[in-house]
Amino acid sequence: MLTLHYTPDTAALPVHIMLEALGLAYKLRLIDREGGELASPSYRALHPLGKVPLLETPDGPLFETAAILLWLADRHAPGTYAPAPDDIGRGDFLKWLFFTSSNLHPAVMELFYPERIAGAAAVDALLPLASARAKAALKALEQAARAEPALFPQDRLALLPLYAGTLMRWLGQLPPDHPARLQIQDYPALRASLAASESSAAALTVAKEQDLGATLFTHPDC
Amino acid sequence: MLTLHYTPDTAALPVHIMLEALGLAYKLRLIDREGGELASPSYRALHPLGKVPLLETPDGPLFETAAILLWLADRHAPGTYAPAPDDIGRGDFLKWLFFTSSNLHPAVMELFYPERIAGAAAVDALLPLASARAKAALKALEQAARAEPALFPQDRLALLPLYAGTLMRWLGQLPPDHPARLQIQDYPALRASLAASESSAAALTVAKEQDLGATLFTHPDC
Repeated sequence: MLTLHYTPDTAALPVHIMLEALGLAYKLRLIDREGGELASPSYRALHPLGKVPLLETPDGPLFETAAILLWLADRHAPGTYAPAPDDIGRGDFLKWLFFTSSNLHPAVMELFYPERIAGAAAVDALLPLASARAKAALKALEQAARAEPALFPQDRLALLPLYAGTLMRWLGQLPPDHPARLQIQDYPALRASLAASESSAAALTVAKEQDLGATLFTHPDC
Repeated sequence: MLTLHYTPDTAALPVHIMLEALGLAYKLRLIDREGGELASPSYRALHPLGKVPLLETPDGPLFETAAILLWLADRHAPGTYAPAPDDIGRGDFLKWLFFTSSNLHPAVMELFYPERIAGAAAVDALLPLASARAKAALKALEQAARAEPALFPQDRLALLPLYAGTLMRWLGQLPPDHPARLQIQDYPALRASLAASESSAAALTVAKEQDLGATLFTHPDC
């Protein structure tokens, strides 16, 4: 049995969608974030840094969003949502997966939690740099989406747009006058791929379950 | 043919060692960093962010240190340096691989390039926070090394200590009075695993080739 520890509209979202897409039996466990559960000894015993998502599996507790997505896709449907380990496109896929987790994901966290990253006094200095990092990463991902439709398909759910789409969702929820607010029309190939992933049956089911709008990635305010 | 674009004593080091360990035919290409090659259009065409390492492969150019290490290990010696895709320990391995690339690696970059991350004015505020993040990540990795000797073996080269060891090497080269300077005796299980990896024939060959000491990870000053 698989148990996803989650809070709505966090990095647990793509894991939840992947579990649904794979048709796996899984349980959801809502974390009491306000009650401080992420810092509790019992949660820290499963995740040393107290983050979401956390997936309990027969092989032990797993964390790190990209690691869980990759493990689920490889284990339960190799080649369906990402190139299989022996596929010629595997290297390219891994390159963009780690690129997203090492560049776009941290830049987004810097934008949302600048005081946690660099202290309250450094927020004004950090934000424009983090914004530039997010935009550079998105620009590179847009080029990848144009060049590699197998990784960013425009007709079905796939792992990379699911993960990048979650991060882009948050950037699309920044205030309209925020310099890092996502202008999705600047990324047409990504947008088409995000639209395909968000309109999958799995994403629509999870959007309803987490009480989010149906256009998770392309119009996150809806 | 594989071509590794590198500069000595950077994140290209573990990739160089993995290529050597796998017994692959590869070329080395020294990047003219001082001459600005990382920002050149020809390099940016291969790596949009202009970082090292970059590995040219028959399947296209690959970047992101962890992605390259994972792809090489899976493609050329599955199960040897990391659990194979269908191994029961694969989830745990991926968890710690992404944990390292998403937590320890960025904390180390913040410590070495704080002004790039948050601006010159924010350096004093950023450093203690980055130091705490590096130590929290190392503490978790030490627990993993104790609990999972298959991932952090003490008698042979493996992917996780090779990658973590490279990052720990840099922390061990900080000035003795720097608050984030690595105290390797605080991490005995990691140290034993790092010692095994650094004394592999592949690591010793690369240390010589890059003109570094023979104790790459445990005594980086030598």
